[in-house]
Amino acid sequence: MSKEIGITVKKAEDFSEWYNQVVLKAELADYASAKGFMVLRPYGYQIWEIIQSVLDCEFKKLGHRNAYFPALIPESILKREAEHFKGFVPEVFWVTEAGDNRLGERLAVRPTSETIAYSSYSKWIRSWRDLPLLLNFWNSVMRAEIKSTKPFLRTSEFLWQEGHTAHATKEEADEETMKILNLYKWFIEEYLAIPVLAGCKTEREKFVGALYTTTLEAIMPDGKALQMGTSHNLGQNFSKVFEIKYLGQDKQEHYVWQTSWGVSWRLIGAVIMVHGDDKGLILPPKIAPIQVVVIPIFYKDKPNEKLASKAKEITTTLQQNGIRAFCDDREEYTPGWKFNDWELKGVPLRLEIGPRDLEKHTVTFALRDTGKRVEVDESSAAERAKALLEELQKRLKARAESMLKELSSTADSYDEFKRILSTKGGFIKAGWCGDQACEASIKEDTGADIRVVPFEGDPSIQRCVYCGKEAKITAYFARAY
Amino acid sequence: MSKEIGITVKKAEDFSEWYNQVVLKAELADYASAKGFMVLRPYGYQIWEIIQSVLDCEFKKLGHRNAYFPALIPESILKREAEHFKGFVPEVFWVTEAGDNRLGERLAVRPTSETIAYSSYSKWIRSWRDLPLLLNFWNSVMRAEIKSTKPFLRTSEFLWQEGHTAHATKEEADEETMKILNLYKWFIEEYLAIPVLAGCKTEREKFVGALYTTTLEAIMPDGKALQMGTSHNLGQNFSKVFEIKYLGQDKQEHYVWQTSWGVSWRLIGAVIMVHGDDKGLILPPKIAPIQVVVIPIFYKDKPNEKLASKAKEITTTLQQNGIRAFCDDREEYTPGWKFNDWELKGVPLRLEIGPRDLEKHTVTFALRDTGKRVEVDESSAAERAKALLEELQKRLKARAESMLKELSSTADSYDEFKRILSTKGGFIKAGWCGDQACEASIKEDTGADIRVVPFEGDPSIQRCVYCGKEAKITAYFARAY
Repeated sequence: MSKEIGITVKKAEDFSEWYNQVVLKAELADYASAKGFMVLRPYGYQIWEIIQSVLDCEFKKLGHRNAYFPALIPESILKREAEHFKGFVPEVFWVTEAGDNRLGERLAVRPTSETIAYSSYSKWIRSWRDLPLLLNFWNSVMRAEIKSTKPFLRTSEFLWQEGHTAHATKEEADEETMKILNLYKWFIEEYLAIPVLAGCKTEREKFVGALYTTTLEAIMPDGKALQMGTSHNLGQNFSKVFEIKYLGQDKQEHYVWQTSWGVSWRLIGAVIMVHGDDKGLILPPKIAPIQVVVIPIFYKDKPNEKLASKAKEITTTLQQNGIRAFCDDREEYTPGWKFNDWELKGVPLRLEIGPRDLEKHTVTFALRDTGKRVEVDESSAAERAKALLEELQKRLKARAESMLKELSSTADSYDEFKRILSTKGGFIKAGWCGDQACEASIKEDTGADIRVVPFEGDPSIQRCVYCGKEAKITAYFARAY
Repeated sequence: MSKEIGITVKKAEDFSEWYNQVVLKAELADYASAKGFMVLRPYGYQIWEIIQSVLDCEFKKLGHRNAYFPALIPESILKREAEHFKGFVPEVFWVTEAGDNRLGERLAVRPTSETIAYSSYSKWIRSWRDLPLLLNFWNSVMRAEIKSTKPFLRTSEFLWQEGHTAHATKEEADEETMKILNLYKWFIEEYLAIPVLAGCKTEREKFVGALYTTTLEAIMPDGKALQMGTSHNLGQNFSKVFEIKYLGQDKQEHYVWQTSWGVSWRLIGAVIMVHGDDKGLILPPKIAPIQVVVIPIFYKDKPNEKLASKAKEITTTLQQNGIRAFCDDREEYTPGWKFNDWELKGVPLRLEIGPRDLEKHTVTFALRDTGKRVEVDESSAAERAKALLEELQKRLKARAESMLKELSSTADSYDEFKRILSTKGGFIKAGWCGDQACEASIKEDTGADIRVVPFEGDPSIQRCVYCGKEAKITAYFARAY
């Protein structure tokens, strides 16, 4: 593979450039002709389809159903919840014209769907029989980005899912908020092989319009945190504004309690950053569009029908065993070129079969993460592939767990806090008095903010890392994407 | 069921009002708070999910992959193909502001993705090895509607899929255009149970920027035609404008040949119109989210644990046999209410089980289309359900075929042409000289245009129905949605 095609920088040396090259050269995404936007290319979209199908199935098991709401929201509707509007308005794209006509009212390109959805919920919910209302939308949202585009992480439009539920009581909304947070956590840890910290956002960092926000935060190799997903209990803030009321079994009218929650294609960005290496992407098997690439290796590159048909036969056997396998028998590329290309694209397992294997009834696996090679009997290929994929999935998770551990510190003093940030970064566990002034000062001073307040505090932490007063809260600070 | 909940008009008496009531009362869709837009509610979305999953699977079998392109297109990109721009500009929504900033260039909310996609294709396609490029996008597009909103049929935003392919030769593009048209035809006839006429659009009616457009047209019970899907051969019109060139095996540079094609949620509108009756929706089993609704009928409405658990058991058995079954054991509604509600929602088959059935080990099916009731042994419920669903699917198709036949006429003279239009409407087969002036005059005169030029002409038709000159073309005329 020529230098131009492969990754030309080392992950440890120029992380940002390495990331951009992996995204572009593995053909996950591309910059679009509109500034700030990206194109999700087929290979990236296949990963998104797997993420979608797993989550969609889980949402449905929990009783959620999908719907579609318009991408344009009249300004008067978006404005109804004042805090929410104030939070989003700096980044809203506004439609002001249709054809040659100036519109009477500006239409916001959906930055999130709370307002447009809840203006319908108020029509649909009448009685306790209509509750809970559990909906989810797979769509794209737009938030104008002024900083330079970073595919999957910072784009003016992104694909995501947003769940929007309505419940009879606060307890049910609390339960839903946590149920989804736990589902996200399970998915991110088990499928993406990325460990996360779970907890709440502070008042300052919570979703605009929410009662409280729960969040999952992961650490990236450059020591910066990445928010992986959020689940909000919206309380009755929106139901009071949008008049979403139900007649209870007690014959009284009540405002509903609501939640909203979402994850986006940003998850793919996290996978790239956490697992990739100097050769390119490494995909956790559970989300890899191709789990095993089968490559026939012809003697002196001369096609050999018997070998080619054996390679296809093995591919079919793998597929019949539930493995996403693909046979790369293109004649216009050499095996070496293919090895490099599929390594760059992060395929977890390569299965090679050559003339000698044909005689011996063997195949050789090459593992994407360790580079290790394993020769096995052809008859046990599917069984061994499954085991190797499972082990690889576990190895990636264990490696990410080590990284999280290494990039987690505790700071007893502000000096130590700043020293850690200026060296390795990562999560810093520290005490906080609960005063927003301290939180804001730390952010201004260091660029780090409170990423997550864990559900259980650490009683050994007694002082606010900034002001030295009594610590009411144990917080994880970090600089973030 | 109270009058307010059920459909209050007859399909034959007020078709338009009947349609609106079915859409709203079956909870397929609702009007949105933005004028001209609609909300696709969960029940409607489930139908869309089935349509998506079948088509997506077929597209992939043919080698297509999905991708996502931005929803905003810079004006300069949209303008590049002049005819295309002229065709779409009257209905484009324009983003002119982001936050507080006026944008330097207007951004069109995607009315279709040819231009934005092909500005990327020109970067991705270099050599013959990169062809064919076979992509599909599931997204929404916006075209400002000034006429009053008609859910699924006339909305300013709609969900659809758009395929965009690039090929080395015209022949390959021709083949792709027809392959997709035939796939659509198969799907519409076999899944939606709606027969269609296939053929080409005239120059006047073809897609703006296409070499030629192939189309599928169905007739609705009110005698108006509905375009169900189109597949365009774009020739080299876009590749020349967007500089999409490849280096051939002949070492020469060539412009690619392209196709684009799409179907939208309008298909759901057609299903409603063609198959529904005075009680509401009738869904063809192959696209019904619930194919069999199981309703336990308690003696004097008193819940009976044994009966309830038997109903659930039967539901599970049906599901295990690949039937989409749902057990409606809600205690807050009477069986009568449930019967009406599921009939309104078009569930093809109802399975009733009461105390007497429990003793006799029987269940009773009620067929949505004929109202016929069939008592069967409980042990054969799944097998019989499958057969009944298959028969029902066939019956709906046969009924739609009769309607198409009844609403198809041939006109030898312009007087006859007008008389047919003013009575039953429908498709009118007639000769056309090929002159756009005649085509335009007929449209102006009668509101009918050429919906489709069949792939094979009728040699018995010899004169242009308007001017009387030699007929070069056999055309199907109709008024249309």
